[in-house]
Amino acid sequence: LRLVIPLFPQVTTLDAIGPYAVLALLPQAEVVFAAATSGPVTDDGGNAVLHAPAAFADVDGCDILVVPGGPGARALLTDEETLTFVRRMSATARWTTSVCTGALLLGAAGLLRGRRATTHWAQTHRLAEFGATHVPERVVADGTVVTAAGVSAGIDMALTLAARHTDRTTAEAIQLLLEYDPRPPFSAGSPASAPPAAHERLRAGLR
Amino acid sequence: LRLVIPLFPQVTTLDAIGPYAVLALLPQAEVVFAAATSGPVTDDGGNAVLHAPAAFADVDGCDILVVPGGPGARALLTDEETLTFVRRMSATARWTTSVCTGALLLGAAGLLRGRRATTHWAQTHRLAEFGATHVPERVVADGTVVTAAGVSAGIDMALTLAARHTDRTTAEAIQLLLEYDPRPPFSAGSPASAPPAAHERLRAGLR
Repeated sequence: LRLVIPLFPQVTTLDAIGPYAVLALLPQAEVVFAAATSGPVTDDGGNAVLHAPAAFADVDGCDILVVPGGPGARALLTDEETLTFVRRMSATARWTTSVCTGALLLGAAGLLRGRRATTHWAQTHRLAEFGATHVPERVVADGTVVTAAGVSAGIDMALTLAARHTDRTTAEAIQLLLEYDPRPPFSAGSPASAPPAAHERLRAGLR
Repeated sequence: LRLVIPLFPQVTTLDAIGPYAVLALLPQAEVVFAAATSGPVTDDGGNAVLHAPAAFADVDGCDILVVPGGPGARALLTDEETLTFVRRMSATARWTTSVCTGALLLGAAGLLRGRRATTHWAQTHRLAEFGATHVPERVVADGTVVTAAGVSAGIDMALTLAARHTDRTTAEAIQLLLEYDPRPPFSAGSPASAPPAAHERLRAGLR
């Protein structure tokens, strides 16, 4: 079972690591972090540096493609090298997935046409540009394409996928190992539940 | 606001990246990943490699210390270099925190004596060795020492801490940005809720 996770400058690290934490535990999983050029890749905060041992050209296919998002995804929506890689991996994959604005990369690669999908709440209006229909759910599966909402939704997506790809008991065992029994201390994880002051603080740039 | 996250071989990546994703968004946050020797650090799955730009000796203090766990923590429970670093950082820190079996490192460093604490559900019996009292909650705050349960609990811990260190609205704004509105597809995230078959699959090694 080969999992490929493309990395790029200004990726959001948790978009990649949430699903990785789950899917790397599937039986016989092999995980490949890949980037346009192999080597270190710095994230959106400029603080976390993940190593990509493989260049895009080194990877011939995969079973599961997980495309993370982040501010850096925007610049790649017209980057043919990245989009070609995403298309090429998806063509070999059993499952094509995204987290957060990784969905826009799937869209720009032409992989969401006519599909139901989701992305980070602040970007859902963009899905229509790529011929996709936004479904306001945390994880949206349309055939073999599974998209997740923003950042932390990648964990829920990966557990859903683990059950579909392997079986429910395996997914539950992984959830138990990761002690994924979330208890957010506040109710602010969606635009509808977050209080106006939290929206305002975010708009002001969290400074 | 300086956040220090020590890394070590066979760390669990999500233990570090969950809190990082939250706390790096605090106003004026600076994040330092540190290791005994600076450079790449390979995680428990052998697949994710995070870069530590700083060696322990390079870091003179911090405001928030986040100690992640993982299988590699076990070997460090008697490693004086690591324990000295943890002690030294904690002495300067406003908050000393851990995720998963990172609590055992705090314990071995002598920082949990007489305190209430938690760790990964499979290791809670070990807290007593370090003079700590296990509290069966996802996040346990005892004064300035805040410990989280297994792996994914680091996200809940960090949101709790963000509110205490800055303010609740900032924590809520971060939760909104990360779209942390968890919807686990199964109820298997704690030993009590996981079905017997999931426990059995985990004991069999997820093969």
